[in-house]
Amino acid sequence: MLDAALLGTGGMMPMPNRFLASFALRLDGKLLLIDCGEGTQVSHRILGWGFKNIDVICITHFHADHISGLAGLILTIANSNREDALTIIGPPGLCDVASSLLVIVPELPFEIIFKELEFTPGVTQNIKAAGFDISAFPLKHRMACFAYSAELSRPGRFDAERAKELEIPLKYWNVLQKGQDVKYEGKTFTPSMVLGTQRRGLKISYCTDTRPVDGLADFVRHSDLFVCEGLYGDNEKLEKAASHRHMIYSEAAKIAKDAEVSELWLTHFSPAMLNPSEFLKNARNIFPNSHAGSDRKNKTFKFIDE
Amino acid sequence: MLDAALLGTGGMMPMPNRFLASFALRLDGKLLLIDCGEGTQVSHRILGWGFKNIDVICITHFHADHISGLAGLILTIANSNREDALTIIGPPGLCDVASSLLVIVPELPFEIIFKELEFTPGVTQNIKAAGFDISAFPLKHRMACFAYSAELSRPGRFDAERAKELEIPLKYWNVLQKGQDVKYEGKTFTPSMVLGTQRRGLKISYCTDTRPVDGLADFVRHSDLFVCEGLYGDNEKLEKAASHRHMIYSEAAKIAKDAEVSELWLTHFSPAMLNPSEFLKNARNIFPNSHAGSDRKNKTFKFIDE
Repeated sequence: MLDAALLGTGGMMPMPNRFLASFALRLDGKLLLIDCGEGTQVSHRILGWGFKNIDVICITHFHADHISGLAGLILTIANSNREDALTIIGPPGLCDVASSLLVIVPELPFEIIFKELEFTPGVTQNIKAAGFDISAFPLKHRMACFAYSAELSRPGRFDAERAKELEIPLKYWNVLQKGQDVKYEGKTFTPSMVLGTQRRGLKISYCTDTRPVDGLADFVRHSDLFVCEGLYGDNEKLEKAASHRHMIYSEAAKIAKDAEVSELWLTHFSPAMLNPSEFLKNARNIFPNSHAGSDRKNKTFKFIDE
Repeated sequence: MLDAALLGTGGMMPMPNRFLASFALRLDGKLLLIDCGEGTQVSHRILGWGFKNIDVICITHFHADHISGLAGLILTIANSNREDALTIIGPPGLCDVASSLLVIVPELPFEIIFKELEFTPGVTQNIKAAGFDISAFPLKHRMACFAYSAELSRPGRFDAERAKELEIPLKYWNVLQKGQDVKYEGKTFTPSMVLGTQRRGLKISYCTDTRPVDGLADFVRHSDLFVCEGLYGDNEKLEKAASHRHMIYSEAAKIAKDAEVSELWLTHFSPAMLNPSEFLKNARNIFPNSHAGSDRKNKTFKFIDE
C-alpha cells in the first residue's frame, strides 16, 4: 500500500491556496518527497503525515520554485526529534546548492546524505533509499532536471500446498515470503521453491519541468500514477510553454497515453491559470483518465488484487 | 499617511494560517518590509499591496524563520517588472548570507544594494532609504539582531498670513512647505520664515527576537505602533522564553508602557500557542492598548490632526 499526495501544484510563484511544486509518497510510515518549493512544509503540516519520517527528498532541479522550501523544511524535520540520516537526491551540484541554502539552518541533529545524479541524456539511474526503489531520468529543461519513479515490487503468490509438501514449518513461511532463504534441519529452502512468478507491483512517476523527450514514455511506462507538469492547459499556449522548456496539458496526456499509465495528475500550473480544471478536456481528449492536481489531492494505491 | 501590516506572525515554524515573521510599511505607494520568513510572499499577495514597489527589506537577524522567504520574494519582485535598485539592510554578514540564499535565483533585472549594520550594543544607527527614515537598534538574542523604527517627520504648520506679508507668490508656497528655499526677485525665502515649529510625525517600531535590553524603551519611545515579539503569552513560560533569548507578552507590554507608545501589537508566536488572544490579559494588565497580531492585521496611521 502506497499513499501519494500533491503538496504543492504551483509553478514559478506560490499563490493563495496553491503552494509551489512538491509531491509526497508514504510507504510503511516512511516518507519520500519530490521537490520542496516555498510553503511545502505548511502544506505537509495540513496534510498531517508528520515530519519525523521524511527519509528521502528528491530534487528535480534547482529553480527556486522547486527547492526554495528546503531550508525551512529541514529545520522543521530537525524540530521533530529526527536523528536518523536524511537522504537528498538531485542533479549534479546538489551538495553545493543545498549547503548554500542551509546557511540559515544551525547544526542539525541528523546527518544529510547527498546523492548527486549524473546527467546523461537517455540514461536512467536507480537508487535505493529508505525502502524505496527510486529511478531518475534526465529531462530537457533550461538546466539539468530529472523525472523520478518510485516502485514497490511484489513477490509471487505463496504456494501453501507446496510449502506443506516440503514440510517447511509454518513459522518460516513469512521469512520465505519476504524473499529470504531458510535453513532448517540441514536443508535450505529458497523463496523460489514456494513463490509463484513475480506479480505486478506499484509504480508512481513524477515529471516536471521539461519538454517531451525521447525515452520519457518508456521511463514512466505502466505507472499506476503519473504526475506530470501542465504549465498551461490552453493548446494555444504551446509556443509560450515550449520557449521556457515546459509542457502543456495535451503534451502530458500524450506521454500518459503512450506510456499506458493508469492515471494522470496534472501539476505545476502557471500563476496565470486560475482554474486548472477549465482546460482538462484538452488532456482528456487524448488520455481520458486525466485529472487536474490540487494541493493535498491524495490517493492510496493498493496491489491490484488486494 | 502610513499603512502598516503584519504579513506573518509565527515564530520558528510556519503554521496553517500563520506565516513566519514579516511586517510591511507603505508610504506614498512605496514599501518597506521587515523580515521575510517562508510564506511572506504568499501573505503579501493576499494583502494586495503589490511587489513592484518593495524598495527596502530590513532583516532583523539570520535565523531561518526571519529570512527563509527572501529568495522567493526577490524572484517574485523580479517577475513584477521592477528595474529600480532594491535595498536590503541587516546585520553584519548580510551580503554573504543573502548571496548564499540567492544561489537559486537567476540574474535579476535590478541591482541589490546591501547595507550591513554594525553591531555595537546600545548604539542606534540611522539609514535613509527610499523615503523612509529608518533606525536600527542592537538587541540581545542568540546572534546579532536589530530592532527597527521607521519615522515620518512632519514640518510645522504653514503660516499663510506671514507668507502674504512677505509677498511670496502663491506658486512658491508649496515649495517652502516641502522645506526648500525660494529665490524670487532678488530675495531668498527660507521655510523657517513661513513654517511653525516642527509637528509630531509618525513612528512605527518593530522588535523581535530579543530579551529586554537597556535602551530599547528609549529607542521605541512614543511610537504610534510598537510591534513586539511575544513568543509566549503565559507568564509561566518566562524561563523557557528567556533560555532561548525571547520575550513573553508581559515583557513586551512593560517596554510598551515604559516607552509610552500608543499601541502594541504582539507577534512571533510559538507554534505551541494556538490562540494568541487567550493570554492577552497578561499584556493588558500592564499596557491596556495591547493587541494580538494576526497575519494581515493592518492599520492606516495619519498625522494626529489630519
